[in-house]
Amino acid sequence: MDPRTTDLEARYRRYIGCLNDRRLDDLSEFVHEELTYNGRPMTRIEYQSLIASDVGAIPDLCYDVRLLVVSGDLIACRIMFDCTPQGEFLGLRVDGRRVSFAEHVFYRLREGKIHEVWSLIDRPAIEAQLAA
Amino acid sequence: MDPRTTDLEARYRRYIGCLNDRRLDDLSEFVHEELTYNGRPMTRIEYQSLIASDVGAIPDLCYDVRLLVVSGDLIACRIMFDCTPQGEFLGLRVDGRRVSFAEHVFYRLREGKIHEVWSLIDRPAIEAQLAA
Repeated sequence: MDPRTTDLEARYRRYIGCLNDRRLDDLSEFVHEELTYNGRPMTRIEYQSLIASDVGAIPDLCYDVRLLVVSGDLIACRIMFDCTPQGEFLGLRVDGRRVSFAEHVFYRLREGKIHEVWSLIDRPAIEAQLAA
Repeated sequence: MDPRTTDLEARYRRYIGCLNDRRLDDLSEFVHEELTYNGRPMTRIEYQSLIASDVGAIPDLCYDVRLLVVSGDLIACRIMFDCTPQGEFLGLRVDGRRVSFAEHVFYRLREGKIHEVWSLIDRPAIEAQLAA
């Protein structure tokens, strides 16, 4: 495997570690000052706030990397979550029930830092679990 | 880039071409006889039927590869669709309206053929467009 790919993979796993350890101030190491999230421009501070708000609503949020594909300046990751969101999450009243769902997320890096993010979360899976 | 990666990427693009040209009988070249789709075991015939049913409900379905990440035996792809599903699609009454949405899909290959698929489709985006 291309050593640069191995480096990026290790670097991405450090980024995930940073999220799981709630070291959100360290995001500057991994994320550009300006980025796009699902096509929407945002600053790193806004990106950090988005994650802080998820973590606030889901204290047991843990990013569990299941598939990781890295090539060139692109990263793709399938992440599993198994957690108990308090109150509302993604517009659904979860109210502390345990739900399990996937995120499929792509990143384009620039100079080794996240510059574009495209994320899909399996909201239908959460709806199905709440309806069960 | 690893020549094997380049090969797999070209091969995957041929698979997408096969879907876009509706040459579904050629899927045997790209897909194992037995696979799992979002964790559910299925035969290639069932996988082919699933795609045939999508294509039947959406005659103008076109797989537009936007991001492609290939490494080792893993492929990740962000695919965009801009189409007019007839009747119901993903449980939503679309009735021929034009909708645009993404799929984020991961594949694990075995001996160069698709053996595991994990797919998320941006159903909330379709809901939002229908509500607009």
